[in-house]
Parts: sequence; structure tokens; C-alpha cells
Amino acid sequence: MSDAKARIAVLGASGYTGSELVRLLLRHPRVEIVALTADRKAGQSMADVFPQFAPFPLPKLGTIDEVDFTAVDVVFCALPHATTQLVIKKVFDAAPNVKVVDLSADFRLSDPGAYEEWYGHPHQALDLQKEAAYGIAEIYRDEIRKARLVANPGCHSSTAILPIVPLLEAGALDPETIVVDSKTGMSGAGRSAKEAMLFSEVSEGIHAYAVSGHRHMGELDQEFSKAAGRPVKPMFVPVLSPMNRGIYATIYVRTTGATAEDLHRILTDFYKGAAFVHVLPFGQVPQSRHVRGSNMVFLGVVADRVPGRAIIISTLDNLVKGASGSAVQNMNLVMGFPETEGLEQIALMP
Amino acid sequence: MSDAKARIAVLGASGYTGSELVRLLLRHPRVEIVALTADRKAGQSMADVFPQFAPFPLPKLGTIDEVDFTAVDVVFCALPHATTQLVIKKVFDAAPNVKVVDLSADFRLSDPGAYEEWYGHPHQALDLQKEAAYGIAEIYRDEIRKARLVANPGCHSSTAILPIVPLLEAGALDPETIVVDSKTGMSGAGRSAKEAMLFSEVSEGIHAYAVSGHRHMGELDQEFSKAAGRPVKPMFVPVLSPMNRGIYATIYVRTTGATAEDLHRILTDFYKGAAFVHVLPFGQVPQSRHVRGSNMVFLGVVADRVPGRAIIISTLDNLVKGASGSAVQNMNLVMGFPETEGLEQIALMP
Amino acid sequence: MSDAKARIAVLGASGYTGSELVRLLLRHPRVEIVALTADRKAGQSMADVFPQFAPFPLPKLGTIDEVDFTAVDVVFCALPHATTQLVIKKVFDAAPNVKVVDLSADFRLSDPGAYEEWYGHPHQALDLQKEAAYGIAEIYRDEIRKARLVANPGCHSSTAILPIVPLLEAGALDPETIVVDSKTGMSGAGRSAKEAMLFSEVSEGIHAYAVSGHRHMGELDQEFSKAAGRPVKPMFVPVLSPMNRGIYATIYVRTTGATAEDLHRILTDFYKGAAFVHVLPFGQVPQSRHVRGSNMVFLGVVADRVPGRAIIISTLDNLVKGASGSAVQNMNLVMGFPETEGLEQIALMP
Amino acid sequence: MSDAKARIAVLGASGYTGSELVRLLLRHPRVEIVALTADRKAGQSMADVFPQFAPFPLPKLGTIDEVDFTAVDVVFCALPHATTQLVIKKVFDAAPNVKVVDLSADFRLSDPGAYEEWYGHPHQALDLQKEAAYGIAEIYRDEIRKARLVANPGCHSSTAILPIVPLLEAGALDPETIVVDSKTGMSGAGRSAKEAMLFSEVSEGIHAYAVSGHRHMGELDQEFSKAAGRPVKPMFVPVLSPMNRGIYATIYVRTTGATAEDLHRILTDFYKGAAFVHVLPFGQVPQSRHVRGSNMVFLGVVADRVPGRAIIISTLDNLVKGASGSAVQNMNLVMGFPETEGLEQIALMP
Repeated sequence: MSDAKARIAVLGASGYTGSELVRLLLRHPRVEIVALTADRKAGQSMADVFPQFAPFPLPKLGTIDEVDFTAVDVVFCALPHATTQLVIKKVFDAAPNVKVVDLSADFRLSDPGAYEEWYGHPHQALDLQKEAAYGIAEIYRDEIRKARLVANPGCHSSTAILPIVPLLEAGALDPETIVVDSKTGMSGAGRSAKEAMLFSEVSEGIHAYAVSGHRHMGELDQEFSKAAGRPVKPMFVPVLSPMNRGIYATIYVRTTGATAEDLHRILTDFYKGAAFVHVLPFGQVPQSRHVRGSNMVFLGVVADRVPGRAIIISTLDNLVKGASGSAVQNMNLVMGFPETEGLEQIALMP
Repeated sequence: MSDAKARIAVLGASGYTGSELVRLLLRHPRVEIVALTADRKAGQSMADVFPQFAPFPLPKLGTIDEVDFTAVDVVFCALPHATTQLVIKKVFDAAPNVKVVDLSADFRLSDPGAYEEWYGHPHQALDLQKEAAYGIAEIYRDEIRKARLVANPGCHSSTAILPIVPLLEAGALDPETIVVDSKTGMSGAGRSAKEAMLFSEVSEGIHAYAVSGHRHMGELDQEFSKAAGRPVKPMFVPVLSPMNRGIYATIYVRTTGATAEDLHRILTDFYKGAAFVHVLPFGQVPQSRHVRGSNMVFLGVVADRVPGRAIIISTLDNLVKGASGSAVQNMNLVMGFPETEGLEQIALMP
Repeated sequence: MSDAKARIAVLGASGYTGSELVRLLLRHPRVEIVALTADRKAGQSMADVFPQFAPFPLPKLGTIDEVDFTAVDVVFCALPHATTQLVIKKVFDAAPNVKVVDLSADFRLSDPGAYEEWYGHPHQALDLQKEAAYGIAEIYRDEIRKARLVANPGCHSSTAILPIVPLLEAGALDPETIVVDSKTGMSGAGRSAKEAMLFSEVSEGIHAYAVSGHRHMGELDQEFSKAAGRPVKPMFVPVLSPMNRGIYATIYVRTTGATAEDLHRILTDFYKGAAFVHVLPFGQVPQSRHVRGSNMVFLGVVADRVPGRAIIISTLDNLVKGASGSAVQNMNLVMGFPETEGLEQIALMP
Repeated sequence: MSDAKARIAVLGASGYTGSELVRLLLRHPRVEIVALTADRKAGQSMADVFPQFAPFPLPKLGTIDEVDFTAVDVVFCALPHATTQLVIKKVFDAAPNVKVVDLSADFRLSDPGAYEEWYGHPHQALDLQKEAAYGIAEIYRDEIRKARLVANPGCHSSTAILPIVPLLEAGALDPETIVVDSKTGMSGAGRSAKEAMLFSEVSEGIHAYAVSGHRHMGELDQEFSKAAGRPVKPMFVPVLSPMNRGIYATIYVRTTGATAEDLHRILTDFYKGAAFVHVLPFGQVPQSRHVRGSNMVFLGVVADRVPGRAIIISTLDNLVKGASGSAVQNMNLVMGFPETEGLEQIALMP
């Protein structure tokens, strides 16, 4: 690496994952934000849209068309799905050597059929889909290092994949009976003005959503099946909890003979040396607030009262490790920076 | 019934279930509160302890010893478990004809061995345990009508039992694979000053607790096993969500051949005419806020993407239908009052 | 009154004040809801819009044009300001004997000039404006009893007027130095889908709004000036606190010689016998949660450390006593029902 | 400065200001935490008490007696008031050259009489009280640089002093009519297990506290009087808002002739170049969430509708700029580090 800072463009900077990227990148020692876009808010300053940035110098919000991608090293793409694939195609057409970390769902499913099933239309950039690396650094570190395009995973997906994939790979779980109950805070739904997202519709209550099928299921199926070596379709329900940040999955598993302690040992071994995954002592239960604002994942393993059953708990901050933090982590890998650079903030609690 | 109002004593009025009883009973047309106790706060007025009652005339808080139970028709007992059984024994010794609705756990488990296993000591009032009716009116209405002592169920227990018992009785579910993920608000933990219950330890985050074994499991085992006709031990994890009121259980089931629509039909039939249980149209998902402050239970049934699997959702207000509301409902049955009397408040939302 | 129930129409039933009216009226023994309107949601059931009403029989949502006002006794109007005056004009044209309780701002300001100043356009129903009674029952009970049209006051307005008007009338306060800092919950802003009202923009933080001029100021000016006998323009800032319900005003006053105890005595005397205003013992501080869900106002008076200064605290639930509860109270007066009918719910806490 | 890191002891690390110090210091490039104390939790690890620190190496919690202060460069003291003065005396007896930043109230009031009045007992370390610098860096930077002992101010105090002192110094305000309505989040009350601090007693409501006199008033009196050149006793009420972090003061002022724009200009000039104080454009209103987790203060100035009156709004995070962040800022001054070192985190929003 030369001493020059990497030049960053953030496409879609007016949503929460966009602002979270800016929060992290502004304090990252090896990068410089050179372009921010937000089509509907083009012309405004970032401080107009997110007053917390008022004290800091940042480029104005512009349109995607205004960005000169040949003068950019890394593009973070925080745009809605479907439009994303077209935008990224254009970006690579204009600047084939740029690196792209995509926070949308567009390149997460490697099977075009699965994409079509979950997203309701054929993929429009199949070549790119083929080359995209699935951005869970702890599992696909080598692929990501070599990738030009990284598909940052869904927040529910990362939360469940991180503990379950190593256990399936080890053959320790019955893949037929996995149940993932995944609680999430509100910020994961973004910043669009919808009645169902109003304070009075979210606070002081809780409810499941997308019960008959949430798109992150497609990622669980893909990664669980790959790890198990055969098709796996877990039960999965996302639940909206009245809080801003945090995914908290309680995962119910049955083993193929292993004890809960065995599961704990497998995870402890797998994540030895992983900077951002912390496995709690056996039997301890994590809380989402202990990772809030940080790039950490906390994992807990507890024995059920019936031998051969166990509860695995996984929690992360959906805006950090579940989105923008892992995107920065992926950029670090892609760019050859130290993996933890710019991501060392400790959780804010309370 | 004569025109005279039933005279009520509330033992343990300084906790949240106690104050909720007072809130409901003050507006019940057929009762009169004649005694309130709270040993550690004896001598104070209810308004000192719960300022919302300041405008209303109420007896002072006293000790249990000061209550003349022969001048009381119904005793609500909202005391800690274990001491409760001794107190109720004394109450019946002094006044054998009084009716008791007990909100503690002391008389919920009919098997003395199960009681000892879950509560860690032998039961001290086995005779009373034998005669207690388990207070889920929708299932045990006839037993409750004849009972002198009603054991009001746990809040997690009611939430899961109401939808699952009819399905097990119908033989529609595989009893081996039931998973109950039961989210709760904070008020269920009562009003004791504990660090883990502080605002800053509960808000803006979520976490499971008692993962290796929660006492309400004993009730699930008892009622599920009775309904299934063989021993059932569901997986069950309670999760604390940052809100005051509400239990919200997402229940993962596999059927013995029935479709999800069949499950919905069984529940709709079972609860036809039940004033406090509302089964949503097939596929709809309830929210806890829509029952907050009311005595209602909302049930939803959604098909899983894999045939033979379904998600059942059950929600109620832990302080009302999960505790004090069902206690009043049980009193109505025991006293021959209309079952819905004093319980017709509509949910407060927002 | 005959035994027949009063027939009620609620115009604008799909907002929070509308649903709160329905919550209260469904349990009011002397009324029957015969029409509900919500122009943009016409054709839907109330349960589609507010699932908490699913268990209860209610008319479908329709348009205003579909209502036969000659078959209605009381109209509650919960529509946006400005359109309201035109709607009510039409209602009276069609049915001159109907009673109208208007929850909008359209008829609150008796001076057409003040209306124009605060609302930015000339009033379009000046005759009706003249006959409207200002709906604070505790102050204008007699006018309301005789009125055909009641202008229900703003929520911030009621909160500050109830304690301050009696003190100004008694000549006890310096009218030049009144400061009203009025905290409110989110539900007062209604149910429209705006970015600033999203959970993530409201929770875990606090902020003032409309600092340079909030329309409820017009009501404070009008009522304070009338009470003081000369023009009064208090300082007033509304502040959005992360909660659903509650207005909580801390009011800073200087006296004309009276002590804080004197102020307390004036208020205690003034509200002797008022069912819905509770003056706490001198020096005690109310909390908004102790009136949540009820029609109560709690008032506190505390001496400042400097003689001649005092802090007055007033709190109510913005959706009940601040809107729909006082609207029902006004209907009770207008219809000759007991003033407290249908309004006796005790606060829900927690 | 040599290259060696400054060795830090944190006394009282088991409270929220203690954990916030650890959060900041762990990421401060010029310091190393060598001792953490918490008398009642001595022997535990920091991760036992605050699980968010589990991934990081930290000394075990010990007792104060176990600390060798001669091997320490800076002591942060986050202990209860009154005991603090005795502890710090001992620290300086053992190690006269150590630097102490005290987060308690013990050394904030320079007048022993005022201390006795507000804290109810004579001060026990008058010599130290004399030498202590009052730790608002933006006002007392030079004194702090030279100090051995810095008295970190109260959170309400900093919030009001930062905007008001420059205006009083400029002679722009009538000192007789200042009203400070200061909303605070819960974390300012610390982590003690008290009933009034439970989630269910704090969420979904708001209330004033210490209305008849809060100790931070003593600091306002001291600093306002010094700035005005004559005794000033503002009206001040703290209000608990249901959120974790943030102080939000709405301050009502009358000028001595200046316009609101003049006030804005004075503040803009005063804070030119201040890294942590951001004055918003005239008329704009800050929100507490935009400084959450950061060391920033946001100030807003809005004209009242009556000339000669204005509303000043000041907000900061009570745990950062209101406590541990300003403590680190003071340490930076005392140690000759760059003032912003370790404090450059951007607000976490949402």
C-alpha cells in the first residue's frame, strides 16, 4: 500500500446504513470520502440529512451520475435491491478496477434460480453475480481478499450463519430441525417514512413480520446447505423488538449425538483469533446491548434440559457487524488493510 | 347472588400484579375492596406506593395478620411463591368458606414431585394442592366454577397453553418438536429493585434469560402432556424485550399430517364464543400492542414454506390476561358473576 | 333523556384521536357508534386499520358523504384543521340540531384575527366560530352545556390552562414572566407517515420543536389574557419526549406577592369536586405515567428557593384528557349525561 | 512527552461513568489502564460487571487500598461524593505528583459555605478544594492545564454553563430571569438498584425531580454569578426523560437589549475553534440524539415571538461530554496531550 488514502464513494448515503458507513469511514485512518450520493436529496449537505455530521467536512450529496468512478478506489453501495445490479454494472463498465462492497441483496445468492424465486424477477447482471464473494469475512476471508465485488450479507443472515455454519460443517447438528427466532431492532428497516415504522407503531410492543417468508431465508438456505452438504431449510421468523439496534437470534438445535458442550467447543475453536466474534463461556447468555455500536458478535451456547438439544444465541449490531461494519471489514480485506482498521469502537452501553 | 358486593382482600398489593388487581377491581361493579396488604409497606396509603390511585378511596395498606378473613368473600393472593402456601393454609383455617385466587406459582403443579423438582423444596400444603383448579378459564371453566382455590397460571404458560393444548388434544401436532420462543415485557418481573431491571439495563436491547430452565416450563410440561396423553417436554426460552407489557410467543410446530389451515380451523372452532380469545384470519400476524391493557389473547396461525410445519403466534398482556385479569376472570367464575364483568377494557394503543 | 342510546358519528376515525374516541365510546353506556369515516381508508374495517378492535362489532369506515347526519345525535370531528370548518358547516346545514364536538383547531380561537395570524388564512365559517364553546369543562362547564358546537382545546393548551387560568384570575401571578416548558409524547403528532416520526428518529433522544411559534400558543394567549384581564404572551416551548402518551408541563411563575403555598391553596379550592383534576399535596411532583390512559390531570405546586417564585407542574394524557377523553366529557355535558360517564378508567401503570 | 503511555487508575469502575471512562481510555492512543477499583465488586473481572468488555484485556477490579499510586500517572475518581474528598487526600499523600480528575461533586464549589449548604456537611479537604480547577475546558483551559486536581462539572451544569456564561460575560442577558429546564436521560443516575430507576418506573412517562433544589444549581449559581459579576440564582428544574443518554436544556432568557441574533453571534464567536462545541445556524434546534455517544455539545439560539426574549438550547451526552468524555478532555489538557485525543467518536444515531 502506498501512503495515499483510499478514495471512497458511498452510494445511497441518506439511509441509516449509509450514515453508519460515513460514521465509520470518517474515523478510518486509511480512507478519504470523496463522493456521497442520495438521488432524492442531491444538493443537500450531509448535515441537512444527518445533523450529527454537522461538525465534520464532507462532500455534498450528489447523484450517482455525477460521480467519476475512475477517481475512486472503493465504492460502497447502499441502494435498494434490483436497481443496485444495474448501477454496479455501470460502475464496473466505467471503472473496471474499482472495488465494490454492496450492501444490497443483489449479489448474495449465487444460484440465479434462488435469486429469481426470492426476488421475483430474473437477475440482470449474471456475470457479476458469478464473481461476487459472499461477505462473511470469518468464513470467506480468502475469497473476499481476491474479490472485486463483495456481497455484504443480510443482518439476520450473518447472525445465524456465524454460529450455525461451523456446527453444520462439523456434522454436529441435525439439519432438519433448526429453528431460528431472530429478533431485530428498527434501524434495519431503514429510514423510509412508513406508517408501520412510526414510533407509536413500534414502541411498547413486539411482533413478528414476514412470517411466511423473509428474503434472508434464501441466504440461510444457501449457506446452511453448503455447510451441511445437502439441502437445508430451517424454520425462521424475524421479530421486531422496540429498540434501534441489534439482532438477537435464539436458535434451537438438535444434535447428531454431540453434547451442548461439544457445540461450544467447536465454536470456540473455530473463532479462536477472530477479532470480532466472541464466544462466551459455556452456559452464558449474551445481550444485544453489549455489542451495540461495535463490530462484535457475541455467541452463547446453553444446554437444553433434554440431552441432544441445545440453544445457541447469536447477537450483533445490525448497522455495524450486520451491515456497515462488516462492509468496512470487507473493504479492509479487499484493500489489504489490517482487518480491524477503523472498527475498534467498543459497544456503547448504556 | 344477593345485591351486596363481594368483599375483596388483596394480599401483596404493592407489586405490579397487586396494583393491576386494584385497577381492575376498583371498576368492577360487583366487588368492594375491603383490605389491602403489603407487609413491608404497611401503614402507607396505596397512593404513596402507586400515585395513580390518589384520586380514589382505598383502604390503607396493612399486614396480613390484621385482615379478618371471616369478613371477606374473596382473597387475591399476589405474594412470593413458597410463603404463599403457608399463608393460604392459614386463610382457610380462619375462614374455610372464603374463595382464594392465587397468583403465585404454589398451586399450579398438581404433581408434588414436579413441584419439588422445579421449586427445590417439598410442598407444604399438599391437601390444598390437590383441590386447586388450574386457572385457565377457557380450558378448565367447570373445575374453576366449583373450586375454592384457583391457581392462576404463569404468564408464559397461559400464552403457550391457550393455542397448543387444543392442537395437542386434537392430535394434530408432533409433540416432540414444539419450540416456544416467548418474548416478555419487563413488568412480569415485578417491582423489586434489582440492578438487572434498571432502565439502562433493559431498554435498547434484548436478551434471553433462564435459558437452562424457567419454572413456567413445569406448567407447559404438565398441560401439554395431559393434552397429548403422553410426556411432552417442549423447548422453551423466555426473552426480555424492552417494553412494559406483553407476552409474545412464536411457536414452531410440526404436524402429524394436518395442514396449517387445519390448525387454524381447530383453534377457530375451539375458541368460538370465547370472549377473550380472538383467532385472527389465517396467515395474519398479531402484535402485542393490540392487546395491551386488555384481557384479550390474540392468536395467529401461519404456514411455513415447508408443508407440515407451521408457526403459531400467541400474545397477551402479562399483567392482565397473564395475571390479574385472568385472576378476576377466575373470580367471576368462582362467584357466579358473568365471566367478562370488569374485564371489558379495550387495549390501549398507542 | 330517553332510554335510547345517543347515535354517534366519528369523522376521521383512522387517526389516533379517532381510535381513542372509539375505544372510549365502545364502553360508554349511553351511546352507540353508528358511523365511522376515514376518507382515504373508506371501505376498510376498523380492524384493518386498528387491529385492537377486531373482536368488537363496529360500522365499516366510510366517507363523510355517506353519513346521514339527520340520523345522528352527536358528531365527533377528528379531521385536519381548515377542512374541518367546511365539513362542520355542511353537517349543520344538513342537520341543524346535531351536536358537534370538534377536535381540530378550527373553532378554538374566538378572535378571527388571531385565527388568521396563527393559521395563515381567513376563517371560512365565522358564524359557527362565534357560537363555539371552548371545551375545557372545568372552566366553561355552563357554556358547554348550552352549546351546539364545542371546540375541544389543544393538548398543550389544556395542560397549561388548567393550572394557570385560576391563578391569573386570582391575580396571584405576574403575567409577564410565565414560562411553559411542555413535554409531549409522540401520539399527539398523529399517525401520518413522516420521517421525523419514525421510531429511530424519536426514541432514545429528545428535542424541542416549533420553538419559534406553536399554534397552541394562540390558545394560551387567549385564555391567559382573558383570565388576567390584559394581554399576556407567555414563553412556551413544546418538547418531544420518547414516549407515546403524556403532556408534562413545567411552568415557571413569579407571584405578585403570594407564596407558593398560596398558589397551591387557590388551585385546591378551585378544583374541589372536579372529578378529573387532582391537586397533589404541596411540594409533591406528579409523573405523566400516573395519568396514562385515564382522563385525569395531576397538578403539583413546588416552591422555588427564591421567595416569590414557584414551579407548577401539570400533566395529562394527550389522547385522553388532552383530546378524546375531554371530547367525551364535553359530549356528556352537551347531552346532559353525568360528566364522568365512560371516563372512569384508571391509569395504566406500568 | 516521552513515548511511554500514561498509566491510568480508574477508581469506581463499576458504575456507568466508570465503564464509560474505560470505553474511552481503551481506545486512547497515549494511555494504558493499570488499575480498576470497585470496592464491592473487588475480585471480579470487568467483563463480569460489564460484559461488553469481555473481548478486551483489562486489570481485575480491586480495592482502592491495593492500588500503588506512585506507579500511576493519572487517577480518574468516579466515587460517591463525600467519600471522594477523603480518598483523594490519601492519594495525594501517597503520590503528590499524580494528576487527579475527579468526577464527583466534591471539588466543584470553590466557596466552602456553598459546599456546606448544598451537601450538608463541612468540607474535609479545604486545601485541595482551593487548588482544584473547575473542569470546563472551553472556559477554564489555562487553569486546567496547570492543575493537579480537576473537578469535573455536573452534567446539568456543563449543559447550561456552556451557552449562558459567555452571554452573561458579554452583559447580554438579564441575569434575574433565566429559566433552565433541563431534561436528562437515566444513565446520569448511575447503576444503583433503586425502585425509582426500574425500567417500568422510567419508560413511557416523564417527570421532574429534585424540583425544590438540585445540587447542580450550586454550580450554576457559582459560574453564572462569576460571569455576571453579581449574584445570580436561576430557576432550574431537572426532568427525567425515558432515554439512556442525553441532557437537553431549554433555556429561557431575556436580554438587556440584544436581539436573539446578537446572542447567536456572541456564542458563534466564543466557540470558534472549539472542537467539541458546535453552534447551529441561527434558528435551528438541536436534538440530543445527534450528540449521543460523542463528546460534542450542540447549541441552538431561537428568537422568541416577543423581542428581547430568546430560547437557547444546549445538548450533550451526559456520560461523555457531561462526565467521562470531559474528564478525558481534562486529562488531555493536564498531561499536555492534544485536547481531542481519544474523543473523536462520532455520535451513534440511531
